[in-house]
Amino acid sequence: MTKKISTLLFDVFGTVVDWRTSINIEIEKMASKYGRHFNWNEFSISWRAGYQPAMDKVRKGKLPWQNIDQLHRMILNELIIKYDLSMMTEEDKIFLNKAWHRLRPWEDSVNGLKMLKENFTIGTLSNGNVSLLVNMAKNSGLPWDCVLSAEIFRHYKPDPEVYKGAAKLLGQPVEKVVLVAAHKDDLDHAKACGLKTAFVPRPLEYSGMTDDTFEDRYDYNAINFIDLSKQVNSAGP
Amino acid sequence: MTKKISTLLFDVFGTVVDWRTSINIEIEKMASKYGRHFNWNEFSISWRAGYQPAMDKVRKGKLPWQNIDQLHRMILNELIIKYDLSMMTEEDKIFLNKAWHRLRPWEDSVNGLKMLKENFTIGTLSNGNVSLLVNMAKNSGLPWDCVLSAEIFRHYKPDPEVYKGAAKLLGQPVEKVVLVAAHKDDLDHAKACGLKTAFVPRPLEYSGMTDDTFEDRYDYNAINFIDLSKQVNSAGP
Repeated sequence: MTKKISTLLFDVFGTVVDWRTSINIEIEKMASKYGRHFNWNEFSISWRAGYQPAMDKVRKGKLPWQNIDQLHRMILNELIIKYDLSMMTEEDKIFLNKAWHRLRPWEDSVNGLKMLKENFTIGTLSNGNVSLLVNMAKNSGLPWDCVLSAEIFRHYKPDPEVYKGAAKLLGQPVEKVVLVAAHKDDLDHAKACGLKTAFVPRPLEYSGMTDDTFEDRYDYNAINFIDLSKQVNSAGP
Repeated sequence: MTKKISTLLFDVFGTVVDWRTSINIEIEKMASKYGRHFNWNEFSISWRAGYQPAMDKVRKGKLPWQNIDQLHRMILNELIIKYDLSMMTEEDKIFLNKAWHRLRPWEDSVNGLKMLKENFTIGTLSNGNVSLLVNMAKNSGLPWDCVLSAEIFRHYKPDPEVYKGAAKLLGQPVEKVVLVAAHKDDLDHAKACGLKTAFVPRPLEYSGMTDDTFEDRYDYNAINFIDLSKQVNSAGP
Protein backbone atom coordinates (compact mmCIF):
# COMPACT_ATOMS: atom_id res chain seq x y z
CA MET A 1 0.00 0.00 0.00
CA THR A 2 1.22 3.47 -0.85
CA LYS A 3 2.29 5.44 2.20
CA LYS A 4 -0.13 8.21 3.06
CA ILE A 5 0.81 11.72 2.06
CA SER A 6 0.31 14.88 4.11
CA THR A 7 1.54 17.74 2.00
CA LEU A 8 1.63 18.92 -1.62
CA LEU A 9 4.24 21.47 -2.64
CA PHE A 10 3.95 23.18 -6.00
CA ASP A 11 6.39 24.46 -8.51
CA VAL A 12 4.84 27.79 -9.51
CA PHE A 13 6.08 29.33 -12.80
CA GLY A 14 4.43 27.28 -15.53
CA THR A 15 2.84 24.79 -13.14
CA VAL A 16 0.43 27.07 -11.23
CA VAL A 17 0.59 30.23 -13.33
CA ASP A 18 0.78 30.97 -17.05
CA TRP A 19 3.82 33.26 -17.12
CA ARG A 20 3.99 33.51 -20.92
CA THR A 21 0.52 34.92 -21.55
CA SER A 22 0.76 37.11 -18.44
CA ILE A 23 4.09 38.64 -19.48
CA ASN A 24 2.91 39.02 -23.11
CA ILE A 25 0.03 41.19 -21.91
CA GLU A 26 2.23 43.27 -19.62
CA ILE A 27 5.00 43.91 -22.13
CA GLU A 28 2.51 44.79 -24.87
CA LYS A 29 0.90 47.35 -22.60
CA MET A 30 4.20 48.83 -21.44
CA ALA A 31 5.97 48.91 -24.82
CA SER A 32 2.90 50.40 -26.53
CA LYS A 33 2.97 53.25 -24.03
CA TYR A 34 6.39 54.13 -25.47
CA GLY A 35 5.30 53.60 -29.09
CA ARG A 36 7.32 50.42 -29.44
CA HIS A 37 6.04 47.26 -31.14
CA PHE A 38 7.76 43.90 -31.44
CA ASN A 39 7.08 40.20 -30.96
CA TRP A 40 5.75 40.09 -27.39
CA ASN A 41 6.00 36.34 -27.19
CA GLU A 42 9.65 36.37 -28.20
CA PHE A 43 10.32 38.99 -25.51
CA SER A 44 8.58 36.94 -22.81
CA ILE A 45 10.37 33.75 -23.76
CA SER A 46 13.74 35.55 -23.78
CA TRP A 47 13.07 36.98 -20.33
CA ARG A 48 12.19 33.54 -18.99
CA ALA A 49 15.12 31.91 -20.81
CA GLY A 50 17.61 34.23 -19.14
CA TYR A 51 16.51 33.06 -15.73
CA GLN A 52 18.01 29.56 -15.81
CA PRO A 53 21.60 30.62 -16.61
CA ALA A 54 21.37 33.52 -14.12
CA MET A 55 20.20 31.15 -11.42
CA ASP A 56 22.91 28.66 -12.29
CA LYS A 57 25.53 31.37 -11.75
CA VAL A 58 24.15 31.82 -8.21
CA ARG A 59 23.96 28.07 -7.68
CA LYS A 60 27.60 27.66 -8.71
CA GLY A 61 28.81 30.62 -6.65
CA LYS A 62 29.67 32.79 -9.68
CA LEU A 63 27.20 35.38 -8.41
CA PRO A 64 26.47 36.16 -4.75
CA TRP A 65 22.98 35.23 -3.55
CA GLN A 66 20.35 37.21 -5.40
CA ASN A 67 16.64 36.65 -5.37
CA ILE A 68 14.50 36.23 -8.47
CA ASP A 69 13.36 39.86 -8.49
CA GLN A 70 17.01 40.82 -8.77
CA LEU A 71 17.77 38.20 -11.43
CA HIS A 72 14.68 39.21 -13.43
CA ARG A 73 15.85 42.81 -13.33
CA MET A 74 19.35 41.85 -14.47
CA ILE A 75 17.87 40.08 -17.50
CA LEU A 76 15.34 42.86 -18.11
CA ASN A 77 18.17 45.39 -18.28
CA GLU A 78 19.64 43.42 -21.21
CA LEU A 79 16.26 43.13 -22.93
CA ILE A 80 15.66 46.86 -22.53
CA ILE A 81 18.75 47.47 -24.67
CA LYS A 82 17.95 44.68 -27.15
CA TYR A 83 14.37 45.87 -27.69
CA ASP A 84 15.23 49.57 -27.66
CA LEU A 85 13.28 50.44 -24.54
CA SER A 86 15.83 52.58 -22.73
CA MET A 87 13.46 55.58 -22.76
CA MET A 88 11.42 53.82 -20.07
CA THR A 89 11.31 55.60 -16.72
CA GLU A 90 12.86 53.82 -13.75
CA GLU A 91 9.40 53.64 -12.19
CA ASP A 92 8.08 51.80 -15.25
CA LYS A 93 11.05 49.44 -15.26
CA ILE A 94 10.35 48.54 -11.62
CA PHE A 95 6.66 48.09 -12.45
CA LEU A 96 7.40 45.87 -15.45
CA ASN A 97 9.86 43.78 -13.44
CA LYS A 98 7.08 43.15 -10.95
CA ALA A 99 4.90 41.68 -13.71
CA TRP A 100 6.18 38.37 -12.31
CA HIS A 101 4.30 39.18 -9.08
CA ARG A 102 1.11 39.49 -11.12
CA LEU A 103 1.21 36.26 -13.15
CA ARG A 104 -2.23 34.75 -13.69
CA PRO A 105 -3.10 31.17 -12.69
CA TRP A 106 -4.16 28.47 -15.13
CA GLU A 107 -7.92 28.08 -15.25
CA ASP A 108 -8.03 25.06 -12.90
CA SER A 109 -5.39 26.24 -10.42
CA VAL A 110 -7.44 28.10 -7.79
CA ASN A 111 -10.30 25.58 -7.66
CA GLY A 112 -7.94 22.60 -7.72
CA LEU A 113 -5.89 24.06 -4.87
CA LYS A 114 -9.03 24.72 -2.81
CA MET A 115 -10.05 21.07 -3.25
CA LEU A 116 -6.59 19.86 -2.25
CA LYS A 117 -6.45 22.19 0.74
CA GLU A 118 -9.44 20.44 2.31
CA ASN A 119 -7.40 17.33 3.10
CA PHE A 120 -3.77 18.30 2.76
CA THR A 121 -1.30 21.05 3.55
CA ILE A 122 -0.56 22.90 0.32
CA GLY A 123 2.33 25.25 -0.32
CA THR A 124 4.64 26.69 -2.91
CA LEU A 125 8.12 25.34 -3.52
CA SER A 126 9.35 27.82 -6.02
CA ASN A 127 12.53 29.58 -7.01
CA GLY A 128 10.48 32.77 -6.95
CA ASN A 129 11.18 34.96 -3.94
CA VAL A 130 8.85 35.16 -0.96
CA SER A 131 7.41 38.61 -1.72
CA LEU A 132 6.75 37.63 -5.34
CA LEU A 133 4.89 34.50 -4.24
CA VAL A 134 2.92 36.30 -1.52
CA ASN A 135 1.90 39.12 -3.87
CA MET A 136 0.93 36.63 -6.58
CA ALA A 137 -1.23 34.69 -4.13
CA LYS A 138 -2.97 37.90 -2.97
CA ASN A 139 -3.58 39.00 -6.57
CA SER A 140 -5.04 35.71 -7.70
CA GLY A 141 -6.52 34.10 -4.60
CA LEU A 142 -4.12 31.17 -4.47
CA PRO A 143 -5.06 29.63 -1.10
CA TRP A 144 -1.64 28.45 0.13
CA ASP A 145 -1.20 27.17 3.67
CA CYS A 146 2.43 28.20 3.43
CA VAL A 147 4.70 29.99 1.01
CA LEU A 148 8.07 28.26 0.77
CA SER A 149 10.73 29.61 -1.52
CA ALA A 150 14.29 28.92 -2.55
CA GLU A 151 14.99 32.29 -0.94
CA ILE A 152 14.38 30.78 2.51
CA PHE A 153 16.98 28.09 1.91
CA ARG A 154 19.37 30.32 -0.03
CA HIS A 155 19.56 27.55 -2.58
CA TYR A 156 17.78 27.33 -5.91
CA LYS A 157 16.06 24.20 -7.18
CA PRO A 158 17.22 21.67 -8.17
CA ASP A 159 19.65 21.82 -5.21
CA PRO A 160 18.60 19.09 -2.75
CA GLU A 161 18.65 21.64 0.12
CA VAL A 162 15.39 23.05 -1.23
CA TYR A 163 13.40 19.78 -1.45
CA LYS A 164 14.74 18.30 1.77
CA GLY A 165 14.66 21.64 3.59
CA ALA A 166 10.99 22.12 2.77
CA ALA A 167 9.99 18.72 4.18
CA LYS A 168 12.04 19.38 7.30
CA LEU A 169 10.54 22.85 7.89
CA LEU A 170 7.08 21.31 7.63
CA GLY A 171 8.04 18.55 10.07
CA GLN A 172 7.27 15.86 7.51
CA PRO A 173 9.27 12.86 6.32
CA VAL A 174 10.12 13.36 2.63
CA GLU A 175 7.94 10.43 1.55
CA LYS A 176 4.81 12.17 2.85
CA VAL A 177 5.48 15.23 0.71
CA VAL A 178 4.53 15.44 -2.98
CA LEU A 179 6.19 17.83 -5.40
CA VAL A 180 3.72 18.91 -8.09
CA ALA A 181 5.30 20.25 -11.27
CA ALA A 182 4.89 20.55 -15.02
CA HIS A 183 8.62 19.96 -15.49
CA LYS A 184 10.22 16.55 -15.42
CA ASP A 185 13.67 17.75 -14.32
CA ASP A 186 12.19 19.33 -11.19
CA LEU A 187 10.24 16.14 -10.43
CA ASP A 188 13.24 13.90 -11.00
CA HIS A 189 15.35 15.91 -8.57
CA ALA A 190 12.56 15.84 -5.97
CA LYS A 191 12.24 12.08 -6.46
CA ALA A 192 15.98 11.66 -5.94
CA CYS A 193 15.52 13.40 -2.55
CA GLY A 194 12.81 10.91 -1.60
CA LEU A 195 9.74 13.07 -2.20
CA LYS A 196 6.65 11.78 -3.94
CA THR A 197 5.96 13.29 -7.35
CA ALA A 198 2.96 14.49 -9.34
CA PHE A 199 3.33 15.43 -13.00
CA VAL A 200 0.79 17.94 -14.30
CA PRO A 201 1.80 18.86 -17.85
CA ARG A 202 0.97 22.37 -19.01
CA PRO A 203 1.16 22.09 -22.81
CA LEU A 204 0.33 25.78 -23.25
CA GLU A 205 3.37 26.91 -21.24
CA TYR A 206 5.48 26.78 -24.41
CA SER A 207 2.68 26.26 -26.98
CA GLY A 208 3.09 22.50 -27.02
CA MET A 209 6.88 22.45 -27.43
CA THR A 210 7.57 20.37 -24.27
CA ASP A 211 7.57 16.67 -23.42
CA ASP A 212 4.17 16.12 -21.86
CA THR A 213 4.05 12.31 -21.82
CA PHE A 214 2.90 10.77 -18.55
CA GLU A 215 5.59 8.70 -16.84
CA ASP A 216 5.27 5.59 -14.69
CA ARG A 217 8.09 6.76 -12.47
CA TYR A 218 5.91 9.53 -11.03
CA ASP A 219 3.45 8.70 -8.26
CA TYR A 220 0.72 10.74 -9.93
CA ASN A 221 0.14 11.93 -13.50
CA ALA A 222 -2.76 14.33 -13.83
CA ILE A 223 -4.19 16.53 -16.56
CA ASN A 224 -4.78 19.43 -14.16
CA PHE A 225 -5.17 20.23 -10.44
CA ILE A 226 -8.82 19.12 -10.34
CA ASP A 227 -7.80 15.72 -11.68
CA LEU A 228 -4.87 15.61 -9.23
CA SER A 229 -7.21 16.46 -6.38
CA LYS A 230 -9.50 13.57 -7.30
CA GLN A 231 -6.54 11.18 -7.50
CA VAL A 232 -4.96 12.08 -4.15
CA ASN A 233 -8.29 12.42 -2.36
CA SER A 234 -9.35 8.95 -3.51
CA ALA A 235 -6.00 7.60 -2.25
CA GLY A 236 -7.04 8.98 1.18
CA PRO A 237 -5.40 11.73 3.18
CA MET B 1 0.30 62.19 7.56
CA THR B 2 1.05 58.67 8.69
CA LYS B 3 2.81 56.64 6.04
CA LYS B 4 0.60 53.98 4.56
CA ILE B 5 1.06 50.44 5.77
CA SER B 6 1.03 47.29 3.63
CA THR B 7 1.50 44.39 5.99
CA LEU B 8 0.54 43.24 9.48
CA LEU B 9 2.67 40.60 11.18
CA PHE B 10 1.40 38.91 14.31
CA ASP B 11 2.99 37.56 17.39
CA VAL B 12 1.10 34.28 17.90
CA PHE B 13 1.33 32.72 21.39
CA GLY B 14 -0.93 34.84 23.57
CA THR B 15 -1.71 37.38 20.84
CA VAL B 16 -3.58 35.20 18.33
CA VAL B 17 -4.13 32.04 20.37
CA ASP B 18 -4.99 31.30 24.00
CA TRP B 19 -2.19 28.91 24.89
CA ARG B 20 -3.08 28.67 28.59
CA THR B 21 -6.65 27.40 28.22
CA SER B 22 -5.65 25.18 25.30
CA ILE B 23 -2.80 23.53 27.22
CA ASN B 24 -4.95 23.22 30.35
CA ILE B 25 -7.46 21.16 28.39
CA GLU B 26 -4.80 18.97 26.78
CA ILE B 27 -2.86 18.24 29.98
CA GLU B 28 -6.05 17.46 31.90
CA LYS B 29 -7.07 14.96 29.24
CA MET B 30 -3.63 13.35 29.05
CA ALA B 31 -2.87 13.19 32.80
CA SER B 32 -6.36 11.86 33.57
CA LYS B 33 -5.70 8.99 31.17
CA TYR B 34 -2.84 7.98 33.49
CA GLY B 35 -4.89 8.59 36.66
CA ARG B 36 -2.92 11.69 37.59
CA HIS B 37 -4.51 14.90 38.86
CA PHE B 38 -2.80 18.17 39.67
CA ASN B 39 -3.17 21.90 39.05
CA TRP B 40 -3.46 22.05 35.26
CA ASN B 41 -3.03 25.79 35.15
CA GLU B 42 0.21 25.64 37.12
CA PHE B 43 1.49 22.95 34.74
CA SER B 44 0.64 25.07 31.67
CA ILE B 45 2.23 28.19 33.09
CA SER B 46 5.39 26.26 34.02
CA TRP B 47 5.64 24.84 30.51
CA ARG B 48 5.31 28.29 29.02
CA ALA B 49 7.68 29.83 31.58
CA GLY B 50 10.46 27.41 30.63
CA TYR B 51 10.36 28.62 27.06
CA GLN B 52 11.92 32.06 27.57
CA PRO B 53 15.11 30.87 29.34
CA ALA B 54 15.47 27.96 26.88
CA MET B 55 15.18 30.36 23.95
CA ASP B 56 17.63 32.74 25.56
CA LYS B 57 20.20 29.94 25.76
CA VAL B 58 19.84 29.51 21.99
CA ARG B 59 19.95 33.28 21.42
CA LYS B 60 23.18 33.54 23.42
CA GLY B 61 24.79 30.55 21.77
CA LYS B 62 24.71 28.35 24.90
CA LEU B 63 22.58 25.86 23.00
CA PRO B 64 22.87 25.09 19.27
CA TRP B 65 19.87 26.12 17.13
CA GLN B 66 16.75 24.26 18.19
CA ASN B 67 13.23 24.96 17.15
CA ILE B 68 10.34 25.48 19.54
CA ASP B 69 9.10 21.89 19.21
CA GLN B 70 12.50 20.80 20.47
CA LEU B 71 12.57 23.42 23.26
CA HIS B 72 9.01 22.52 24.31
CA ARG B 73 10.05 18.88 24.53
CA MET B 74 13.11 19.70 26.60
CA ILE B 75 10.92 21.55 29.11
CA LEU B 76 8.21 18.88 28.97
CA ASN B 77 10.79 16.23 29.92
CA GLU B 78 11.45 18.15 33.14
CA LEU B 79 7.75 18.57 33.86
CA ILE B 80 7.15 14.87 33.29
CA ILE B 81 9.49 14.17 36.20
CA LYS B 82 8.14 16.99 38.37
CA TYR B 83 4.52 15.93 37.89
CA ASP B 84 5.21 12.21 38.09
CA LEU B 85 4.15 11.41 34.53
CA SER B 86 7.02 9.16 33.51
CA MET B 87 4.63 6.28 32.85
CA MET B 88 3.48 8.09 29.70
CA THR B 89 4.24 6.29 26.44
CA GLU B 90 6.62 7.99 24.05
CA GLU B 91 3.74 8.30 21.58
CA ASP B 92 1.71 10.20 24.17
CA LYS B 93 4.65 12.45 25.00
CA ILE B 94 5.00 13.35 21.33
CA PHE B 95 1.26 13.96 21.10
CA LEU B 96 1.22 16.16 24.20
CA ASN B 97 4.22 18.15 22.98
CA LYS B 98 2.27 18.87 19.81
CA ALA B 99 -0.53 20.44 21.87
CA TRP B 100 1.20 23.69 20.90
CA HIS B 101 0.27 22.93 17.26
CA ARG B 102 -3.38 22.76 18.33
CA LEU B 103 -3.72 25.99 20.34
CA ARG B 104 -7.12 27.64 19.91
CA PRO B 105 -7.52 31.24 18.74
CA TRP B 106 -9.12 34.00 20.81
CA GLU B 107 -12.75 34.52 19.88
CA ASP B 108 -12.10 37.52 17.60
CA SER B 109 -8.91 36.23 15.95
CA VAL B 110 -10.22 34.44 12.85
CA ASN B 111 -12.83 37.07 11.93
CA GLY B 112 -10.47 39.96 12.65
CA LEU B 113 -7.76 38.41 10.49
CA LYS B 114 -10.23 37.86 7.64
CA MET B 115 -11.18 41.53 7.77
CA LEU B 116 -7.54 42.62 7.80
CA LYS B 117 -6.68 40.26 4.95
CA GLU B 118 -9.04 42.11 2.62
CA ASN B 119 -6.76 45.14 2.45
CA PHE B 120 -3.40 44.02 3.80
CA THR B 121 -0.92 41.19 3.70
CA ILE B 122 -1.17 39.33 6.99
CA GLY B 123 1.34 36.88 8.38
CA THR B 124 2.77 35.35 11.50
CA LEU B 125 6.00 36.58 13.06
CA SER B 126 6.39 34.06 15.81
CA ASN B 127 9.10 32.20 17.63
CA GLY B 128 7.02 29.09 16.96
CA ASN B 129 8.46 26.85 14.27
CA VAL B 130 7.03 26.72 10.75
CA SER B 131 5.31 23.33 11.07
CA LEU B 132 3.72 24.37 14.38
CA LEU B 133 2.35 27.56 12.82
CA VAL B 134 1.14 25.83 9.65
CA ASN B 135 -0.59 23.05 11.60
CA MET B 136 -2.17 25.59 13.96
CA ALA B 137 -3.51 27.60 11.01
CA LYS B 138 -4.98 24.45 9.40
CA ASN B 139 -6.58 23.39 12.69
CA SER B 140 -8.19 26.75 13.39
CA GLY B 141 -8.70 28.37 10.00
CA LEU B 142 -6.24 31.23 10.57
CA PRO B 143 -6.14 32.77 7.07
CA TRP B 144 -2.47 33.82 6.84
CA ASP B 145 -1.01 35.07 3.58
CA CYS B 146 2.35 33.90 4.81
CA VAL B 147 3.80 32.04 7.74
CA LEU B 148 7.03 33.65 8.92
CA SER B 149 8.90 32.20 11.85
CA ALA B 150 12.07 32.77 13.84
CA GLU B 151 13.05 29.35 12.45
CA ILE B 152 13.48 30.87 8.98
CA PHE B 153 15.90 33.48 10.28
CA ARG B 154 17.58 31.17 12.79
CA HIS B 155 17.17 33.94 15.33
CA TYR B 156 14.54 34.25 18.03
CA LYS B 157 12.65 37.43 18.79
CA PRO B 158 13.61 39.93 20.10
CA ASP B 159 16.75 39.67 17.91
CA PRO B 160 16.50 42.42 15.26
CA GLU B 161 17.26 39.87 12.51
CA VAL B 162 13.69 38.58 12.90
CA TYR B 163 11.85 41.92 12.58
CA LYS B 164 14.09 43.33 9.86
CA GLY B 165 14.39 39.99 8.08
CA ALA B 166 10.62 39.66 7.83
CA ALA B 167 10.17 43.09 6.24
CA LYS B 168 12.99 42.32 3.79
CA LEU B 169 11.58 38.91 2.80
CA LEU B 170 8.25 40.59 2.09
CA GLY B 171 9.94 43.29 0.02
CA GLN B 172 8.60 46.03 2.29
CA PRO B 173 10.30 48.95 4.02
CA VAL B 174 10.08 48.44 7.80
CA GLU B 175 7.80 51.46 8.22
CA LYS B 176 5.09 49.83 6.10
CA VAL B 177 5.02 46.76 8.34
CA VAL B 178 3.09 46.60 11.61
CA LEU B 179 3.91 44.17 14.39
CA VAL B 180 0.77 43.19 16.27
CA ALA B 181 1.35 41.82 19.78
CA ALA B 182 -0.09 41.55 23.24
CA HIS B 183 3.38 42.00 24.75
CA LYS B 184 5.07 45.34 25.14
CA ASP B 185 8.65 44.01 25.02
CA ASP B 186 8.01 42.47 21.60
CA LEU B 187 6.47 45.74 20.35
CA ASP B 188 9.27 47.87 21.74
CA HIS B 189 11.90 45.77 19.98
CA ALA B 190 9.95 45.93 16.71
CA LYS B 191 9.65 49.70 17.10
CA ALA B 192 13.40 49.97 17.64
CA CYS B 193 13.83 48.23 14.26
CA GLY B 194 11.58 50.82 12.58
CA LEU B 195 8.39 48.77 12.31
CA LYS B 196 4.99 50.19 13.14
CA THR B 197 3.33 48.72 16.22
CA ALA B 198 -0.14 47.65 17.31
CA PHE B 199 -0.85 46.71 20.91
CA VAL B 200 -3.73 44.31 21.44
CA PRO B 201 -3.80 43.37 25.13
CA ARG B 202 -5.04 39.90 25.99
CA PRO B 203 -5.90 40.19 29.69
CA LEU B 204 -6.96 36.53 29.85
CA GLU B 205 -3.53 35.29 28.77
CA TYR B 206 -2.37 35.34 32.40
CA SER B 207 -5.74 35.98 34.10
CA GLY B 208 -5.23 39.73 34.25
CA MET B 209 -1.71 39.64 35.70
CA THR B 210 -0.09 41.67 32.90
CA ASP B 211 0.29 45.36 32.09
CA ASP B 212 -2.52 46.05 29.64
CA THR B 213 -2.47 49.85 29.59
CA PHE B 214 -2.61 51.42 26.14
CA GLU B 215 0.54 53.37 25.26
CA ASP B 216 0.93 56.48 23.12
CA ARG B 217 4.21 55.20 21.75
CA TYR B 218 2.40 52.50 19.74
CA ASP B 219 0.84 53.41 16.42
CA TYR B 220 -2.33 51.49 17.27
CA ASN B 221 -3.90 50.34 20.53
CA ALA B 222 -6.89 48.05 20.03
CA ILE B 223 -9.10 45.93 22.24
CA ASN B 224 -9.11 43.05 19.76
CA PHE B 225 -8.47 42.24 16.06
CA ILE B 226 -11.91 43.47 14.95
CA ASP B 227 -11.17 46.85 16.55
CA LEU B 228 -7.68 46.83 15.02
CA SER B 229 -9.16 46.04 11.62
CA LYS B 230 -11.50 49.04 11.87
CA GLN B 231 -8.62 51.31 12.90
CA VAL B 232 -6.21 50.34 10.13
CA ASN B 233 -8.93 50.12 7.47
CA SER B 234 -10.13 53.64 8.30
CA ALA B 235 -6.51 54.84 8.03
CA GLY B 236 -6.61 53.52 4.43
CA PRO B 237 -4.60 50.67 2.96
